[in-house]
Amino acid sequence: MLQPGLMMDRPLLISAIIEHAAAQYAHVDVVSRETHGPLFRYTWSECAVRSRRFANALAGLGLGPGSAVGSIAWNNHRHLEAYFAVSGSGMVMHTCNPRLQPQQLIYIINHAEDQVVLFDATFAPLVKGIAAHCPQVKHWVCLADAENTPAIEGVANVVAYEDLIAPHGDAFEWPEFDERTGAALCYTSGTTGNPKGVLYSHRSMVLNALSGAVPGVMGLSPSETVLPVVPMFHINAWCIPYGAPMVGARLVLPGPKLDGASLHALFESEKVTVGAGVPTIWLGLAQYVEQNGLRFSTLKRLLTGGTAMPLALIAKFADDFGVEVGHGWGMTETTAVATFGALTPADREKPAAEQHAVIARQGKSLHGVDIKIVDEAGATLPRDGVAQGELMVRGHWIVDRYYKATESALRDGWFPTGDIATIDPDGRMQIRDRTKDVIKSGGEWISSIDLENTAIAHPAVAMAAVIGVRHPKWDERPLLFIVRKPGQALEKDEILAYLRERVASWWVPDDVVFLESLPVGGTGKVQKTHLRETYGGLFT
Amino acid sequence: MLQPGLMMDRPLLISAIIEHAAAQYAHVDVVSRETHGPLFRYTWSECAVRSRRFANALAGLGLGPGSAVGSIAWNNHRHLEAYFAVSGSGMVMHTCNPRLQPQQLIYIINHAEDQVVLFDATFAPLVKGIAAHCPQVKHWVCLADAENTPAIEGVANVVAYEDLIAPHGDAFEWPEFDERTGAALCYTSGTTGNPKGVLYSHRSMVLNALSGAVPGVMGLSPSETVLPVVPMFHINAWCIPYGAPMVGARLVLPGPKLDGASLHALFESEKVTVGAGVPTIWLGLAQYVEQNGLRFSTLKRLLTGGTAMPLALIAKFADDFGVEVGHGWGMTETTAVATFGALTPADREKPAAEQHAVIARQGKSLHGVDIKIVDEAGATLPRDGVAQGELMVRGHWIVDRYYKATESALRDGWFPTGDIATIDPDGRMQIRDRTKDVIKSGGEWISSIDLENTAIAHPAVAMAAVIGVRHPKWDERPLLFIVRKPGQALEKDEILAYLRERVASWWVPDDVVFLESLPVGGTGKVQKTHLRETYGGLFT
Repeated sequence: MLQPGLMMDRPLLISAIIEHAAAQYAHVDVVSRETHGPLFRYTWSECAVRSRRFANALAGLGLGPGSAVGSIAWNNHRHLEAYFAVSGSGMVMHTCNPRLQPQQLIYIINHAEDQVVLFDATFAPLVKGIAAHCPQVKHWVCLADAENTPAIEGVANVVAYEDLIAPHGDAFEWPEFDERTGAALCYTSGTTGNPKGVLYSHRSMVLNALSGAVPGVMGLSPSETVLPVVPMFHINAWCIPYGAPMVGARLVLPGPKLDGASLHALFESEKVTVGAGVPTIWLGLAQYVEQNGLRFSTLKRLLTGGTAMPLALIAKFADDFGVEVGHGWGMTETTAVATFGALTPADREKPAAEQHAVIARQGKSLHGVDIKIVDEAGATLPRDGVAQGELMVRGHWIVDRYYKATESALRDGWFPTGDIATIDPDGRMQIRDRTKDVIKSGGEWISSIDLENTAIAHPAVAMAAVIGVRHPKWDERPLLFIVRKPGQALEKDEILAYLRERVASWWVPDDVVFLESLPVGGTGKVQKTHLRETYGGLFT
Repeated sequence: MLQPGLMMDRPLLISAIIEHAAAQYAHVDVVSRETHGPLFRYTWSECAVRSRRFANALAGLGLGPGSAVGSIAWNNHRHLEAYFAVSGSGMVMHTCNPRLQPQQLIYIINHAEDQVVLFDATFAPLVKGIAAHCPQVKHWVCLADAENTPAIEGVANVVAYEDLIAPHGDAFEWPEFDERTGAALCYTSGTTGNPKGVLYSHRSMVLNALSGAVPGVMGLSPSETVLPVVPMFHINAWCIPYGAPMVGARLVLPGPKLDGASLHALFESEKVTVGAGVPTIWLGLAQYVEQNGLRFSTLKRLLTGGTAMPLALIAKFADDFGVEVGHGWGMTETTAVATFGALTPADREKPAAEQHAVIARQGKSLHGVDIKIVDEAGATLPRDGVAQGELMVRGHWIVDRYYKATESALRDGWFPTGDIATIDPDGRMQIRDRTKDVIKSGGEWISSIDLENTAIAHPAVAMAAVIGVRHPKWDERPLLFIVRKPGQALEKDEILAYLRERVASWWVPDDVVFLESLPVGGTGKVQKTHLRETYGGLFT
């Protein structure tokens, strides 16, 4: 018979993170860009004090365990305090992506039953448009002082965060409860149907944050200053707001200023060593740095994910700027990072181009997450770097069931990601496509992502997208969409010839459509659904 | 009302660690010094295969969930396989310290109800002496092949590990069970009374191993090769055997060869980057390296703990060898590391001597452990670096109750460590003494450790110990014991004059006793109980 262990039984709680930082990293600082411009600066100890005051304020508003608090906000120190105050109180921190359509925002705020919504002044127009449709929201709290809180026409219950916490005390007894309690809620930005909510538990977030802090992933420690550009309003800023205080890293929050010039200035002035964000952000940063003949004085590593980081951009940072890129993968349903690719000592002895190719893969699963790829019948495919199948994940921080759903989101105990991937013999995973985007042509699969990445490497191409369109003989054939760079006169024959030299002949798209723009959704990804609606019938 | 989170609920189990390494770090190697001399070399994938075969073998012997398996063994690959096979099967891995007295070994093997005991050939004489007194041990398994397994007179049931696993298959379905299940058992080496057992849970060990892998502690990753000299037979080799496969580090196990020459050769040949062990080991290594005019080619960091690392030794490694020392604290009751001290960027700008003084402290508690110091009435003392009190700890990997004990080991929910410590305003803890060793003189406390460290810095001193002896006026006064280095003629007046220049005048010992040796116990610490028995009444 199993013997029970005889160790202390204490829950893994988010409140313990900020109190640990207050006790052990009291003087380590947190820097935050206010929405109205200036930098704000304090310590983990002061962050803890203000988190407790906000927890008192929430209790004062009549909210209790299980209540939901929404946020439509940038990465800043008040949003950070809310992360600890709301979850730490046993409430649910519901981060809303301001890039969602207003009707989707209304849907998720009502579905989550948010009683309070925190917002940054930037989003006052958004609040104005949705407030009347969210009747259960008792208070709209602007993450600012009174001076920087705008009046919103038609919205009476707006209060400044600083006014709200001012009367409250610095002490707060964080409640102890089951670590499986819901801590935060984030909705997917599904292109079809309503967004679906993922209710993260304290346990899942603490385990993810800790697992992400190890050197082979984010490598957070008191020696690092980390700047998450990845938004706190979506997928928990990859849990960096939890991981940094856990291990005593300095944290720099960029607020609304995410352009290359602002980020470069902040990286330099705050001596940032690690940045985290999606490839689009790093593209803007690279262009700014390049155009202005700048370099980085302290930046050592950029962490990226969300969409695949183009090889050329990995090479630009590594070879020209001396900044190593670490490439991860995760989705709303996986709390934050689930796999991560970093160079091993053996990789570092390879030529630069091979190193970049290693980084371009999304890497190995973190301890705590299992991965496999399966065919359409659910059979596990080999880890040979060739076989492509749907990526399946399971682990401590993977969704089991969507919020308010009655059925499990799992298939045989694994979460089907909807991504098509390969896994190398050494365990490195690479996303090749989305299941709904992969092109099935003559019984074989063509990766739309690989085609797009190849096309975008052409110097005249600004954006590229590929969809499969029905074809009488081949089932599906690829159709390429191109947005030209300004002033470029690229034509169909030239881009097809360019592709013909670089991909298998039967991958070469059957046609090319030149557009002025591509439809981009709430999380910055091209919405191929719209392209399919308009162009999907072309070859039938 | 609290909302339950909706994430997958999977237990934190030790079997998942080795399977993670097999899947994601299949080709990363493990190097092990066989007890009979040669180096053995395989991969994490092969380690997993052999762990499963040993799990099958244990089941074949009739052991089941909850059964205890003892080990009296060095750090080697078979011991490592046992760590995974035994705990992974839901059994209890009971590591025995071979330095315990035979009667204590007999006591703990019987108390733990070990059904199988694994041993290295080195300890065959020990097994010979105790086997008859441990009737419930069905099999004594020598961690070797048949050729290197000695016959032991009077012990019939000896089997070679390789013979035991040879007939068994590579596949094993690890059972899933509650993460709070007991995984491993280690006994304290109490100087009074019988040893007390600490039954670690899967949860406590997984959380400790993960928390110890972060850069501010051990910094384990695929880029590192870690060599634990700290024994697998006591305090779980600081959980490095779990942490390394979790994050894909190379692991080098030194077997029985722990002298300076052997370790230096192994560090060099296997390109070790991180070593872990007690100060005595590093002292031997430093002397060997110094005397032979050697240096380290790849070693970057030494982790140390167990007893305080002398300043001079920290300086030797840092200044002369370019190897940074990280200083931790833990005890049997804390699974492995509970606090750890590493340099921050601000520390690195200080003069070398100040950096060494920072490292000499035992550092900050890891996330997951809370620390405080209390006075004799249990009141919390300030974190001012001056107030000394008993160190109290609580957290995910701290003991709650000793094995088979009916009462909690805690005081008000905290474990009283028996150590006297200070905590700095920045959260760094420093052990000043043991509660039973601290000298209470005229209402003030004198740290026996501080006096010993000061005395040992004298060039003629090989070993030093200080005890308090009763005194009619001052309650207690310090008595110093000195073991001279060979050929040195140090006398009482000289060492007292030396101390007088370096410590407060009222700390200077009242007398000095020169001995040929000091009594050292099972974990390498001076047994002051014996000194007190003989000399404790001196000043009364």
